Amino acid sequence: AAMAGWGWVRAVRGLLLDVSGVLYDSGADGGVPIAGSAEAVRRIKASGLKLQLCTNETQATRENFVRKLRAMGFDISVAEVTAPAPAACRLLKERGLRPHLLVHDDLVPEFAEVDKTNPNCVVLGDAAENFTYANLNEAFRLLIGMEKPVLIALGKGRYYKETDGLKLDVGAYMKALEYACDVQAEVVGKPAKRFFESALAELGVPPEQAIMIGDDIVNDVGGAQQCGMRALQVRTGKYRPSDENHPEVKPDAYVNNLAEAVDIILQQL
Amino acid sequence: AAMAGWGWVRAVRGLLLDVSGVLYDSGADGGVPIAGSAEAVRRIKASGLKLQLCTNETQATRENFVRKLRAMGFDISVAEVTAPAPAACRLLKERGLRPHLLVHDDLVPEFAEVDKTNPNCVVLGDAAENFTYANLNEAFRLLIGMEKPVLIALGKGRYYKETDGLKLDVGAYMKALEYACDVQAEVVGKPAKRFFESALAELGVPPEQAIMIGDDIVNDVGGAQQCGMRALQVRTGKYRPSDENHPEVKPDAYVNNLAEAVDIILQQL
Repeated sequence: AAMAGWGWVRAVRGLLLDVSGVLYDSGADGGVPIAGSAEAVRRIKASGLKLQLCTNETQATRENFVRKLRAMGFDISVAEVTAPAPAACRLLKERGLRPHLLVHDDLVPEFAEVDKTNPNCVVLGDAAENFTYANLNEAFRLLIGMEKPVLIALGKGRYYKETDGLKLDVGAYMKALEYACDVQAEVVGKPAKRFFESALAELGVPPEQAIMIGDDIVNDVGGAQQCGMRALQVRTGKYRPSDENHPEVKPDAYVNNLAEAVDIILQQL
Repeated sequence: AAMAGWGWVRAVRGLLLDVSGVLYDSGADGGVPIAGSAEAVRRIKASGLKLQLCTNETQATRENFVRKLRAMGFDISVAEVTAPAPAACRLLKERGLRPHLLVHDDLVPEFAEVDKTNPNCVVLGDAAENFTYANLNEAFRLLIGMEKPVLIALGKGRYYKETDGLKLDVGAYMKALEYACDVQAEVVGKPAKRFFESALAELGVPPEQAIMIGDDIVNDVGGAQQCGMRALQVRTGKYRPSDENHPEVKPDAYVNNLAEAVDIILQQL
């Protein structure tokens, strides 16, 4: 009976996993793995299912991010991570855009190959301590001075939790610049459809054969469903019971955590 | 012929004046008077018309603001200034609100009489250098932690110009907090109807007998007209020729500057 309604899983060939709140919880010294998640990743790989991490992380390069995950016991390689910065680099290249970066210091190397002279757009990430009054005014002046201001936001999260408290996320600063310049930002990252499509392309599986597993009802679950995927919400990370009454988004199922999701999925295959 | 269409001025008994961009231009060491404006203020007073300044200035107490204006040659007293901070203090008192202040250091004395212990709202002004990452996170955490978050914004300007360049104004930071907390700020200051009503009460003249004179098409002209006043836009300060094609707001007339406005008005009386 507990397995009722899971028949659709038989068609699944690949999983997209959110990272923070699914694999680990953010913490003082970088993070603490969620119980059973490292083992769950190993079991996914052993089963032959494809796996891709799909994250809005913009405080580190993928290399450093993967180093951190591996130190926590996750068997993950750089190619298995879809993140906003590389997606933004592709977009910049395609459209001949030269960014002014307002991002975290540790993310800057992701843009090493991009021409940043004489900027014709602003790329906004979770800049954290770099969100100073001077840096915000500088980004604003560049934007308002452009004939056609282009603002690219690496995600649009409202806030997130660290051990020393809640922090405003990139979305809040995006709204500030949008209002001041009367522009609409282009969001690269979840929940943008194009970002999920990149992740699926890297996963190598069409949307109807993939499941997204995340803790964020809007950015993970809603975004993936908009893309034609099924999506599970884990009751870890930023999950709150009130998510289960969300007015617009309803996950295909709830699971207590990633380990339970993998148990159920592997039983169906 | 130049005076055609000004007949309605005969009913006027009082003037509301915006300050920055009408009396003076903001500048490196505080500001430079706009030619003819100090004399225009004297002529208004000599004519028997009532006069009240109606400003969104929140970087100084009214006392210091008036000191600056007097040093520039303007015959103005503190009682002749309607500004957001005193209006916010009245609102806080009426509703039993205890603010956390994110404002300019020089504005803090305006809130001396207000109970600020155990805050149940956030008051946001143009905090300038006080818009730090830490201060924004602090204001955000207090708001998100309230059962019913109350955000009071002293104005909602997008940006303004100083000699060292454009600066993000309070409205941009208001949008950031609104988005992060999913609340709508209450704006005290132009263009809020209630704020113009306070200014009219201090002027002692009903809206149909008052003229607003300002450089801001939306906050001065649009706001005053919403209140039932006539409004003139001066072609000084932040005025731009494109304002004359504004999709929603049309001033009752344009004047080159305050001196010209006073010339025309006094000729009709």
